[in-house]
Amino acid sequence: MIILGIDPGTTSIGYALLDCANHRQPRLLEARLLPLISPSAEDRLLDVHREIKKIIEQWHPQAASVEKLFFAKNVKTAIAVSETRGVILLTAKLAGIKVYEYTPLTIKNVVTGEGSADKAQVQKMVRLILGIKEEITPDDAADALAIAICAANNNIY
Amino acid sequence: MIILGIDPGTTSIGYALLDCANHRQPRLLEARLLPLISPSAEDRLLDVHREIKKIIEQWHPQAASVEKLFFAKNVKTAIAVSETRGVILLTAKLAGIKVYEYTPLTIKNVVTGEGSADKAQVQKMVRLILGIKEEITPDDAADALAIAICAANNNIY
Repeated sequence: MIILGIDPGTTSIGYALLDCANHRQPRLLEARLLPLISPSAEDRLLDVHREIKKIIEQWHPQAASVEKLFFAKNVKTAIAVSETRGVILLTAKLAGIKVYEYTPLTIKNVVTGEGSADKAQVQKMVRLILGIKEEITPDDAADALAIAICAANNNIY
Repeated sequence: MIILGIDPGTTSIGYALLDCANHRQPRLLEARLLPLISPSAEDRLLDVHREIKKIIEQWHPQAASVEKLFFAKNVKTAIAVSETRGVILLTAKLAGIKVYEYTPLTIKNVVTGEGSADKAQVQKMVRLILGIKEEITPDDAADALAIAICAANNNIY
């Protein structure tokens, strides 16, 4: 089973593909950043839809795990990220993929054992879990991997 | 030219179709409420996409006018409405329709001349502008008409 992890942002989206055929040792297939460069919000949403659709068509994941937003200090950011999240959830549903959502707190707790873990701790634990020696760059790609690991750990398959 | 006005909410979406072939007297074609009843957020987003797509395929509007959210007291509501808005904007873009967005303040200002107008004032002015004697129910359908009128008034065609 392949899980697609997605970390939605306002200027970019982190995504990662995890092969969980071997339950004890999930394997990294790809972890990247999609920069969102179109100037208008509508064009950015269209880009998000097309890129996520392309990734799904290429890798055929059986599940998508998406970071959930349920609180935000900055309302403007929350609005922009939620619009992107809406498009991501729709794109996964249109492709017939089951969607799982986890809050940042749950993701950090599952991956590091600490809800208050910082990006460096998440990066470290993701590499340890997946047996990766090199640093995963950028951080958002490591975060997307943590989101995928969260779904894998949740025994969704 | 037909304009599709959309008022996105968390439990329902108001939509209205306005025929603007006669610039001096826009004509109401349809104004309704789409209840969002699916229990999961992903299914609701899928419903929003399918229903808006169906309306576009039926009426062939040349433009969509959507209420913009740029501030909210309740972050949870802002997040849910923004996810729905993201799907609406994407659906219009996928159908090749130009999208216009207006804040509630602009819509009220354009339709009633007062940014602080209440729902009753908006309803009254919408009926006056469109020459409708009967009350438009529910209020969200009248709001969707106000959003469409806002785009029509902005000389977008």
